[in-house]
Amino acid sequence: MKKEIAVFLGTLLGVASILGFTATSGAAVISAATQACIDCHETINPGMVADWRKSLHATVSPAEAIKKPLLERRVSFKNPPPGLEATAVGCAECHTLNSDAHKDTFDHNGVKVHIVVSPRDCATCHPEEVAEYGHNIMSQAHGNLLQNPVYKSMMDAANCLQKFDGVRARLTTVDKLTEEDSCIHCHGTKVEVTGSKIRETSMGEMTFPVLSGWPSGGVGRINPDGSKGACTACHTRHAFSIEMARKPATCSECHKGPDVPAYKVYQVSKHGNLYESAGDKWNFSAVPWTVGRDFTAPTCATCHASLLVNEAGDVVAKRSHQMNDRSAWRLFGLPYAHPHPQSPDTTIIKNRAGLPLPTELTGETAAGYLIDKKEQGKRRASMQAICLQCHATSWVDGHFARLENSVETTNQMTRTATDIILAAWKKGLAKGLDKKDSIFNEAIERMWVEQWLFYANSTRFASAMGGADYGVFADGRWYMSKNIQQMADWLFFLEAAQKNEKNGRTTKK
Amino acid sequence: MKKEIAVFLGTLLGVASILGFTATSGAAVISAATQACIDCHETINPGMVADWRKSLHATVSPAEAIKKPLLERRVSFKNPPPGLEATAVGCAECHTLNSDAHKDTFDHNGVKVHIVVSPRDCATCHPEEVAEYGHNIMSQAHGNLLQNPVYKSMMDAANCLQKFDGVRARLTTVDKLTEEDSCIHCHGTKVEVTGSKIRETSMGEMTFPVLSGWPSGGVGRINPDGSKGACTACHTRHAFSIEMARKPATCSECHKGPDVPAYKVYQVSKHGNLYESAGDKWNFSAVPWTVGRDFTAPTCATCHASLLVNEAGDVVAKRSHQMNDRSAWRLFGLPYAHPHPQSPDTTIIKNRAGLPLPTELTGETAAGYLIDKKEQGKRRASMQAICLQCHATSWVDGHFARLENSVETTNQMTRTATDIILAAWKKGLAKGLDKKDSIFNEAIERMWVEQWLFYANSTRFASAMGGADYGVFADGRWYMSKNIQQMADWLFFLEAAQKNEKNGRTTKK
Amino acid sequence: MKKEIAVFLGTLLGVASILGFTATSGAAVISAATQACIDCHETINPGMVADWRKSLHATVSPAEAIKKPLLERRVSFKNPPPGLEATAVGCAECHTLNSDAHKDTFDHNGVKVHIVVSPRDCATCHPEEVAEYGHNIMSQAHGNLLQNPVYKSMMDAANCLQKFDGVRARLTTVDKLTEEDSCIHCHGTKVEVTGSKIRETSMGEMTFPVLSGWPSGGVGRINPDGSKGACTACHTRHAFSIEMARKPATCSECHKGPDVPAYKVYQVSKHGNLYESAGDKWNFSAVPWTVGRDFTAPTCATCHASLLVNEAGDVVAKRSHQMNDRSAWRLFGLPYAHPHPQSPDTTIIKNRAGLPLPTELTGETAAGYLIDKKEQGKRRASMQAICLQCHATSWVDGHFARLENSVETTNQMTRTATDIILAAWKKGLAKGLDKKDSIFNEAIERMWVEQWLFYANSTRFASAMGGADYGVFADGRWYMSKNIQQMADWLFFLEAAQKNEKNGRTTKK
Repeated sequence: MKKEIAVFLGTLLGVASILGFTATSGAAVISAATQACIDCHETINPGMVADWRKSLHATVSPAEAIKKPLLERRVSFKNPPPGLEATAVGCAECHTLNSDAHKDTFDHNGVKVHIVVSPRDCATCHPEEVAEYGHNIMSQAHGNLLQNPVYKSMMDAANCLQKFDGVRARLTTVDKLTEEDSCIHCHGTKVEVTGSKIRETSMGEMTFPVLSGWPSGGVGRINPDGSKGACTACHTRHAFSIEMARKPATCSECHKGPDVPAYKVYQVSKHGNLYESAGDKWNFSAVPWTVGRDFTAPTCATCHASLLVNEAGDVVAKRSHQMNDRSAWRLFGLPYAHPHPQSPDTTIIKNRAGLPLPTELTGETAAGYLIDKKEQGKRRASMQAICLQCHATSWVDGHFARLENSVETTNQMTRTATDIILAAWKKGLAKGLDKKDSIFNEAIERMWVEQWLFYANSTRFASAMGGADYGVFADGRWYMSKNIQQMADWLFFLEAAQKNEKNGRTTKK
Repeated sequence: MKKEIAVFLGTLLGVASILGFTATSGAAVISAATQACIDCHETINPGMVADWRKSLHATVSPAEAIKKPLLERRVSFKNPPPGLEATAVGCAECHTLNSDAHKDTFDHNGVKVHIVVSPRDCATCHPEEVAEYGHNIMSQAHGNLLQNPVYKSMMDAANCLQKFDGVRARLTTVDKLTEEDSCIHCHGTKVEVTGSKIRETSMGEMTFPVLSGWPSGGVGRINPDGSKGACTACHTRHAFSIEMARKPATCSECHKGPDVPAYKVYQVSKHGNLYESAGDKWNFSAVPWTVGRDFTAPTCATCHASLLVNEAGDVVAKRSHQMNDRSAWRLFGLPYAHPHPQSPDTTIIKNRAGLPLPTELTGETAAGYLIDKKEQGKRRASMQAICLQCHATSWVDGHFARLENSVETTNQMTRTATDIILAAWKKGLAKGLDKKDSIFNEAIERMWVEQWLFYANSTRFASAMGGADYGVFADGRWYMSKNIQQMADWLFFLEAAQKNEKNGRTTKK
Repeated sequence: MKKEIAVFLGTLLGVASILGFTATSGAAVISAATQACIDCHETINPGMVADWRKSLHATVSPAEAIKKPLLERRVSFKNPPPGLEATAVGCAECHTLNSDAHKDTFDHNGVKVHIVVSPRDCATCHPEEVAEYGHNIMSQAHGNLLQNPVYKSMMDAANCLQKFDGVRARLTTVDKLTEEDSCIHCHGTKVEVTGSKIRETSMGEMTFPVLSGWPSGGVGRINPDGSKGACTACHTRHAFSIEMARKPATCSECHKGPDVPAYKVYQVSKHGNLYESAGDKWNFSAVPWTVGRDFTAPTCATCHASLLVNEAGDVVAKRSHQMNDRSAWRLFGLPYAHPHPQSPDTTIIKNRAGLPLPTELTGETAAGYLIDKKEQGKRRASMQAICLQCHATSWVDGHFARLENSVETTNQMTRTATDIILAAWKKGLAKGLDKKDSIFNEAIERMWVEQWLFYANSTRFASAMGGADYGVFADGRWYMSKNIQQMADWLFFLEAAQKNEKNGRTTKK
């Protein structure tokens, strides 16, 4: 009978494991410090604590975690974190770590606690992952946007208030909260302590730091300890699960708009169809992630980040938090698609025209700052090794030939649209660089922006991921083609209207 | 052994309950009257009956339902509904209730049956819920739209046919079926009996009432018994489950368009990511709904409707079918975002200009008809009590500061766009109120409409729910900013074209 | 005890079956030929093999499959396929079938293998399904698009590169890879052998055919054996599951764009809400598919393809791979919605104006080529028989009355937009057929295209499926109405700008 029961239990656990329940030996020992946190916060913020209780942080101590075979490890420290190895990774373990480096540290019931847990804190147990992420362009997303005057002027074109003077509308001012709620939501805010505040709480009066740039979960967050990034952007608090980071919905938070429609393209791709239809039977928690056994079609993480093995245990792809090291091209045009920048800090780039852009306005690349053909080939080969797990070589070769062609043709269409905007500037029908004006603020300039930022990008993403209609009617080639026709007509209208105005009939200033 | 088996069964039921199967004691007793319905209709409309058989209506009698502890109750009657308490709530229980009040009642095999079950019928067992819904602006959605001449003229701008006279296109007529298929699909049709009809059926010739405005599942449906609303808009027939009403897809039917992109914004928010990635492990059926145990991130219902408790059983939020009593602002601009109307019947509102709008065209609120700052504060606090279950105070405060700022700045951008349309009317380049013309029918007027209805709304929804790109490139701030530039250019083009016409070169009438 | 264990196992299997695990008797016998394939390819392409191992092809031999009762059969052959009946349907069974007919056949380790498995190959076991698909307009999707000069010119308007000459932008050339990555991704490429290539592999040097038009999974693929179609477009490789074909995500690959937003409309319909909220408890594998028991709301396949029965086992709808034989109207306007073409090959159609279009530009149908009212009635009745499984007659009648009305009114709006474009051609403000120019390439012509291709189509799909906002603000009636106003203004601007140019002030050629 015992044996039979064991069989049942085995079957049951099998069902459970297929359903995504992680079999754990129960909770790890909770430190006294963390227990003190929980004693109050389980009442005040029960959702926060409940989420954590389901996490591996709550159930596996670092000392246990490091015992796993190398490929199965989710931690990468060399030496056990002093004093932390034996207990669950709880509130106190993270929020009191490196306190001196944190400007957001405050005295909380006699304990030095900081609010914002940073990648530098996470690196205590996950140093390799954090180091990889340091090479990820996302880790620099805040500065890459705000410290680049060209990109900043595009932010302004989106975020500034405007005033209408009776003839023309002009950009005025923008405030910090708007930027944080807009572009920087994804790029990451700068979190700073601006003061402190006494607040009446259920535990009586208490003093808390006042943070600006908060809330913040963007990938390039500037933390109060000076580090950059937010691991929780993808490993959502307070479960921090690998399952969530592997599911495409997580990426959709920042990769769904018309500028980077990766998630929308994925959804209508064959891969996305498979995920949507069969993904509920896949195992999103296994480390390493075994092709065929754990899943039968890729998610975003499969192709761009995860450690993959085959059933024999051979490594198909190494784990990467750099994310772009399996991609030959940066499909995101600025304004043209181009080889990936060498450095994650893109503010150092200067094209020949002196602009901080990876390409000229006329399309040539700022080659010295970008990876070369050899590195492109290496990255493409890394990706193709994954494709080949399910596809034959002829299929893979054909797919990549179309992608290369799409990069080329969409760039040509961006060039044509650029010729129109150059003509507009030359004819004085719009104000560009020569007038020291923003190149993104007027109506026809915005049509030009959408040509590359929305339509060429959509087309390339569709090409890269088999997203069909996003390369045709859904912000794809139809729009690339139509927009050029509309830009030419708009220029024609502007010219006629300006002539009419100059003839003294109106008084456009 | 018995004990071991019990453990297995317990585990099994645990798995089953996590999967969302409701443990019931099987079906309740079916009344003879309902059995008579089923005898035929299980053959004629098997899907209808099968759906009902899975419902709590089929498995729990009112008498059993009222025995639950107060917080667990799904019924709210004081006195047991006479004659209905002991049986399943089946076909006959609902479709023969209050027959005399129903103009759609007809004789069906000797029984007085009505087709449309109304909130007044549901109130027999759910009086509190129906009363709450009476305070919900949605319950007035039919009249609020059709009885407001300004909104009706916007409906016409969407639905009317048009004719082109060789120079200009003009709105002509609209028919009832189009309106029912368009705006009123969500707002709710008026269901009326227009006659009766003999039809050959599998049971021989039978007479049925002919209904106009049918099908109908809109939230503000005008029922044949004079009541307003359709509980089935969210508690879909014939399962009427709370699970469905709590899942965000249900809300998407009416809250996905560019005018109210709540569902799309939710999907890309961190909350939506969590639902999509982990929601299959949540319990959507529990009453009350326990934060942390039953779910770890909110759906639409969590924040706007559901009865929430913490694990200690303390009430975090009271159940609300009013829905807007946890929200300080009506983010939906008309044309400006504004404090919620006091009365769900908004046809009573008159602004200072005499228009039935909650704000002036220049932005000031029709204050006397809207909730005051104190009530706004109370509603905001109700919402924040929910946020605090998972977020610290500093996070919540920062979030709401950004939302307040977005309300202010998006309203300013609507004002700028309005300045352009006011100039267009003044210059005679479009026909507005002074010409007694619709303010929504011409091309430039429609650009103005999209400024607040699509772009400002999207931006505010994104701000309220952390929807990132819907506040930037996906109908967000980029479009708010671009649209103003395009409106100014369009005005410029109109002026030149009109001058050209007046110079006798064309004959635009 | 044995009995108790059996009960547990039964319960467990019940849970498993609800979860969608197919209970099989394990794998069927694998042929030696297939085993030889697997021996290498399980290492080289493990995902491919793993997916197949989960399929019915791997677990049920044709001989077993044909033994099922008629309604439960998934195969339709009369005589067992010689030599194939007793083994699993594996690599060799499909990829070596009919080798002589396949131009992509090559010698692979001494075996004649072809790369592209075609419907003609599938017909060995599924002849009825393939024959049905031959009547499906999708099977002709390649030729219907590329062999129709009008449609080809619309492809060019989307795909051609453009050059700006300083005043006007003109279409130039298009390449094959772009077309394959764009329109033909869904319509299906022509797959041809263009040569052969020696490649270094892990097994040493080997020779492979070089294919053009590859990858390819479009519904109207032209295969190297001359047949048309790709069963894998919906029954995705290498699981080929009915479950996937029944889930709406599969259809989304090609039916999500603004031209055919069927999937998007479905998602916000009540049916889609039910699928999203409750579909995880439905059985997508059962054959036949029982209304009420297996599912309680339809997916795309339910209404358009699947074999449906009621619980009594009566057939509600026969299986159809023709797909349009339950639909009275082709909602997809070209440019007007019209009765379905009689022949799946639509290149044979000529309207009275001599164009290969199912309607005149002024709206009248090319009646001789389209199904008549009687056939429309028959198809509508087939669909309504499905609706009636869950809805009463009055509901169904009302629904279809609105759909008929939408077909009529959207066609009227297309006519109004066409009047504007006809005026543009007549006034010389755009170049149309009389100038032997494309009718789709200029800005105002593209606005006309979007009137019927995006907005009228969206409105009709919304009407057909209860998709609410897609008939109003999401590419629906609001856009139909706005676009006509914008087209009229654009014409007005073109006229003024052309006059300005003619007055010698500009030099637009």
